Amino acid sequence: MIVYGRNVLEEVLKSHHLVRKVYLRADERNKPSSLVEKLKKANFPFTFVSSRKLAELCGEEKNQGVVIDLEFKYADESEIKGDLVVLLDHINDPHNLGAIARTAVAAGAGAIVIPKDRSVDVTPSAVKVSAGALLRIPVVKVTNLPRTIDNLKEKGYWIYGADMEGTSIYEEDFQPPVGLVFGNEGEGLSRLVKQKCDQLIAIPMYSDIDSLNVSVSAGIIMFEIARKIRRVE
Amino acid sequence: MIVYGRNVLEEVLKSHHLVRKVYLRADERNKPSSLVEKLKKANFPFTFVSSRKLAELCGEEKNQGVVIDLEFKYADESEIKGDLVVLLDHINDPHNLGAIARTAVAAGAGAIVIPKDRSVDVTPSAVKVSAGALLRIPVVKVTNLPRTIDNLKEKGYWIYGADMEGTSIYEEDFQPPVGLVFGNEGEGLSRLVKQKCDQLIAIPMYSDIDSLNVSVSAGIIMFEIARKIRRVE
Repeated sequence: MIVYGRNVLEEVLKSHHLVRKVYLRADERNKPSSLVEKLKKANFPFTFVSSRKLAELCGEEKNQGVVIDLEFKYADESEIKGDLVVLLDHINDPHNLGAIARTAVAAGAGAIVIPKDRSVDVTPSAVKVSAGALLRIPVVKVTNLPRTIDNLKEKGYWIYGADMEGTSIYEEDFQPPVGLVFGNEGEGLSRLVKQKCDQLIAIPMYSDIDSLNVSVSAGIIMFEIARKIRRVE
Repeated sequence: MIVYGRNVLEEVLKSHHLVRKVYLRADERNKPSSLVEKLKKANFPFTFVSSRKLAELCGEEKNQGVVIDLEFKYADESEIKGDLVVLLDHINDPHNLGAIARTAVAAGAGAIVIPKDRSVDVTPSAVKVSAGALLRIPVVKVTNLPRTIDNLKEKGYWIYGADMEGTSIYEEDFQPPVGLVFGNEGEGLSRLVKQKCDQLIAIPMYSDIDSLNVSVSAGIIMFEIARKIRRVE
């Protein structure tokens, strides 16, 4: 997978993904650059190329002189941990996946779970929107989301599904560990996933609009949960 | 402006924008359609065309058989009202404008203010992302955002700017009426706008990620304010 940008490189340095090569703009060679030092320290293979070559590699002129070729590694279901896990029930838009991942990391979530079929994958554009956060958080791809929900329940997770019929997030206490499921952009939670949830929760609206963009909903709910389970006032 | 979709038409029906013509897929003619009744009642000019013509008009196959040609009308600064007003300091991405508008309507905001220069306009794709909400909320385009902030202050608005150096939104009481400013995707608030703010506020983060996607931040902050100024517990 080809990704780019300085922020993204910072995330790659903290991640466990295999780096095939880092491409830097030729003029970095003559700079007293902490970037090069970092790459040497991390033992990442790197090379200097022209601006033109960089743009060609990643398809984007605004790449901040850094392009990274890496092997994105999905995590195994056994690696799911933490007091907040985010499950995405057939999200289609890479923009939403990226924004949700960035928010999940900021809210201290331990993993993101996506289904194998009929779901967006981790793509370069999702990584870009996530500002690299998708490279930091474990992303688990599962064959059967309802079964994964069952497994999480057995581990003690309480599973909340975001659904406009649910109870207000402000009335809910949220005892960790929490699994939080968001549905597809148009259709919401699928029937079976909805049935598997221990509880449905909703954001109270102040007008007759019945839903928000899923990445916005996810942000409001994740931060309400993070605030409560981490007892910040 | 050409917009499309059934939800968007519902918003157009509630809006004050001038409708030039509504195009419906030919097979709507033979349906006992509440859509046609609504259009007649609203006195909107409409016509039936082929699926192909609809896709051609709006550039999108998935238009739900409804395409609307309307004249988008920006509101005047004197029309700003309500206990929550959202100001966007040079947002560039139509996706962000659309998502923020949808959230603003859901949070009960009274208006959105954007600057004339170096800012995204209300475009068809922004309207689409907003699920039509951009057609419902007054959007005010101003020449000089800092001056508009001064005018709002004179009307009694307390102006908050979203900035990662600000105080926690959870510690803030938020007395209405409130003006809430969000900065550019990459650069945040501009220097002058920042100076004009009565107070800077931030979302506390639970990891070393220092910012969220602006539409996600806007959602978290707007709903925290809506909850407090409308006293929902």
